[in-house]
Amino acid sequence: MTIIGNLLIAGSEKRGTNGEFHGIESATGNPLPVSFGGATPEDVERAASKAWAAFQLYRETDLESRAAFLETIAEEVESIGDSLIVRAMAETGLPRGRLEGERARTLGQLRLFAKEVRDGRFQELRFDGADPSRKPAPKPDLRLRNVPLGPVAVFGASNFPLAFSVAGGDTASALAAGCPVIVKAHSAHPGTSELVGRAVQRAVARANLHPGTFSLIFDTGFEAGQKLVADPRIRAVGFTGSRRGGTALMEIASRRKQPIPVYAEMSSINPVILFPDALKNRAREIASAFVASLVLGAGQFCTNPGLLLALDGADLDTFTQTAAELLAEISAQPMLTPSIAKAYSDGVAKLERHPEVRSIASGKTGSAYEGAAALFETSAEAFLAHHELQDEVFGAAGLIVRCRNLAQLDEVVDALEGQLTVALHIDDGDQEAVTSLIPKLELLAGRLLVNGFGTGVEVSPAMVHGGPYPATSDGRSTSVGTLAIYRFLRPVSYQDFPVILLPQALR
Amino acid sequence: MTIIGNLLIAGSEKRGTNGEFHGIESATGNPLPVSFGGATPEDVERAASKAWAAFQLYRETDLESRAAFLETIAEEVESIGDSLIVRAMAETGLPRGRLEGERARTLGQLRLFAKEVRDGRFQELRFDGADPSRKPAPKPDLRLRNVPLGPVAVFGASNFPLAFSVAGGDTASALAAGCPVIVKAHSAHPGTSELVGRAVQRAVARANLHPGTFSLIFDTGFEAGQKLVADPRIRAVGFTGSRRGGTALMEIASRRKQPIPVYAEMSSINPVILFPDALKNRAREIASAFVASLVLGAGQFCTNPGLLLALDGADLDTFTQTAAELLAEISAQPMLTPSIAKAYSDGVAKLERHPEVRSIASGKTGSAYEGAAALFETSAEAFLAHHELQDEVFGAAGLIVRCRNLAQLDEVVDALEGQLTVALHIDDGDQEAVTSLIPKLELLAGRLLVNGFGTGVEVSPAMVHGGPYPATSDGRSTSVGTLAIYRFLRPVSYQDFPVILLPQALR
Repeated sequence: MTIIGNLLIAGSEKRGTNGEFHGIESATGNPLPVSFGGATPEDVERAASKAWAAFQLYRETDLESRAAFLETIAEEVESIGDSLIVRAMAETGLPRGRLEGERARTLGQLRLFAKEVRDGRFQELRFDGADPSRKPAPKPDLRLRNVPLGPVAVFGASNFPLAFSVAGGDTASALAAGCPVIVKAHSAHPGTSELVGRAVQRAVARANLHPGTFSLIFDTGFEAGQKLVADPRIRAVGFTGSRRGGTALMEIASRRKQPIPVYAEMSSINPVILFPDALKNRAREIASAFVASLVLGAGQFCTNPGLLLALDGADLDTFTQTAAELLAEISAQPMLTPSIAKAYSDGVAKLERHPEVRSIASGKTGSAYEGAAALFETSAEAFLAHHELQDEVFGAAGLIVRCRNLAQLDEVVDALEGQLTVALHIDDGDQEAVTSLIPKLELLAGRLLVNGFGTGVEVSPAMVHGGPYPATSDGRSTSVGTLAIYRFLRPVSYQDFPVILLPQALR
Repeated sequence: MTIIGNLLIAGSEKRGTNGEFHGIESATGNPLPVSFGGATPEDVERAASKAWAAFQLYRETDLESRAAFLETIAEEVESIGDSLIVRAMAETGLPRGRLEGERARTLGQLRLFAKEVRDGRFQELRFDGADPSRKPAPKPDLRLRNVPLGPVAVFGASNFPLAFSVAGGDTASALAAGCPVIVKAHSAHPGTSELVGRAVQRAVARANLHPGTFSLIFDTGFEAGQKLVADPRIRAVGFTGSRRGGTALMEIASRRKQPIPVYAEMSSINPVILFPDALKNRAREIASAFVASLVLGAGQFCTNPGLLLALDGADLDTFTQTAAELLAEISAQPMLTPSIAKAYSDGVAKLERHPEVRSIASGKTGSAYEGAAALFETSAEAFLAHHELQDEVFGAAGLIVRCRNLAQLDEVVDALEGQLTVALHIDDGDQEAVTSLIPKLELLAGRLLVNGFGTGVEVSPAMVHGGPYPATSDGRSTSVGTLAIYRFLRPVSYQDFPVILLPQALR
């Protein structure tokens, strides 16, 4: 499998001439072989125009063909073989095991959406029979189905080079809904993106679909991505990344002549709440699981537990002491990109300098491209007074907030912004306290979990990977799990249609 | 039943002190008895605070209680009796028959949502069983349900003083979803609003709900409504009205610290397309049905057929001639408010003066408060060159666009903005032409209908009263029919919850 650095537009390929950039080896900061050419406005225009043409055919593919296409993508991605893992390792610094697992998840995701397509429930077919004799007015025949929104722009995520990138969750759910996809590759893993993009391109060809069903572009800055979101033929956006990036796309989308939905998964510090009885009975055990979740993948997960709330006292001292001891043994890990490593160390330094924050442990330090785990603590008063302590530090940094009592913990919860997850650690004696808190947490986050951590996002029908703003741009949606398909659909009603004119599914 | 002009805030009432206004008799422009006091910022604040408190209880009402509450609202509105119809007639100028029908629709709507609540499907319950032995990682127990967004601000519509006002579709669907409601009464029918508001207040009391579950405020300008949408405790907005009003609320909602969804149903000219065979066979019959739909309720329907596309020629001449003859016999009808009458006559005058537009018929003229029907025609070239010809003229004005051939008609369709409805008039010989156009129309509107007109919106499971921007702010939703409940819900996932902590529905 060759990496050339070309844009993949609608079944063909070409060199992008709007600047160039290299993939960077995460471990060294050195450029990797092959440069990638950025898309010109004309390239974006061409991809959008082809996607629009493809949409007219792709939207009405029968469910079986569409499902088979998703499975073909999975096959083609799988057939890239080890060169995909090797390139992804170099570009992201993520270890082999993690990337192999992520590939399995990516393939599983595509196959799960194939199943969802075959199931057909997403079409939301509804039939209201006519009653010509009804008084005062005859009742018409009404039938409803969901139709796809149109071509979708997908922005690959830095931290999931496979599962939330070129053939990741946004792409799989948009294609499942009947929408062509144009991916803007994340510049943190352009080679990985090209390999997967070529696999999707092959799947489009094998399935005899219009080549405009899929395109992949590179962007040396923000120009191509912004032009994509502004293009009138793009009808929805899927994005995983920073709050700044997500809100910038929301702004562009809302200023269009026809505004479009942006599904941006942006930032979350995923509060962990330790309840008193659990803390008393299992401080060491929970501390160990917490540190494991905090440092997983160098902390570069959207669901990384960045905030921990608990009641001050001897049990919390036991917890922090255990966590500190374990954290001190953690080796520095390569981060996804040099700039992410830099942002992480800046974020940690800011916490270290904060007058109200105490550093309680650091993992082993490494190179400038690696992130050392870090654990901090502060008081509830300080946390409530300093809103910047809610800022996500993307990486393995955690902040423990010591609360005087449950009422103050409640106050801290009230002050939190929208989150992807909230994790509750409880034992039998905590039932009353947790019961009274849950209603509040349901409004705060998309997923609540008990005696676990948010890292490890199951891809399944009952998953919500979403949450109120600013965790995402639209708390009514999820980007993981089968419910994600509904983001790219809207209902249309057909009144008194002769059968011959009805869409097949409504006949 | 007494009208006092008071704000109804959370079970109590008080005089609004932020200016005052009167209901206006539509037929004369004279003020009706009783003045209404506008809400102060403190009143809005209090309603929002009470709604938030009520939300914590109302969101977890069991389905049976919530359904019974909706039915109690219907009962209480019904029990107002004829004084409701009499006051609504005076305030809106709508005839008794129409208002009695609208009341029946309003009651039916409330009862339909009661049924939808009992059915429980809107909860979207999903269960993924655990598998502790799964490799490489155990599968967690995941359960999902929809939860209500929070208190909803509803802006009553001028043209449906009952069915899209205080206890109308937005209110019914929000309450069904588990959201308290604060209604900003439309100043075109404040007395009608107060009567219905008191009925809802009585229903809240009878159902033993928290009084903050419902409030009704008056606004002498835009201040109270804007403050309502900006209030952090309001979590969604339902609005039916002008494009200017809707986009202003969208702007406020997007600028909040936590942006919220705005469901604004704004403007639509509801294209009617006459295909050649139908026009040849049934020009007179369709013309008669068209004129009836155009002038229904003085044309003051969101789904009023304001635009008609057809091929130029003798058949269209027959159509226009018939329509012109029928229209000339139509009496002027009182419009909802003096300002709506003024806007209508300005809109008609603008079309009369337009160099590319020809007036082909006018209905009988009446008082300054009445609207005379008007029919215009133009060429496809002119329509394509003058975007302002797409502007909605709210009232019984129609514009016929003469197209040279089907290709040009297609071009006109391409130039149209998002619509609520598109009506197709076809006969057997039109099948090919209509088949090729339907995919385009599915992207243009929320409801497509054959051999009928969009006026008369069925309240049922398969109805879509929505459509791409600018017909509405969010083409993924409907404001009429049971699907409307989904606007006020979001999914939450519960992972590894002990049964005792799960919401009842998920146990």
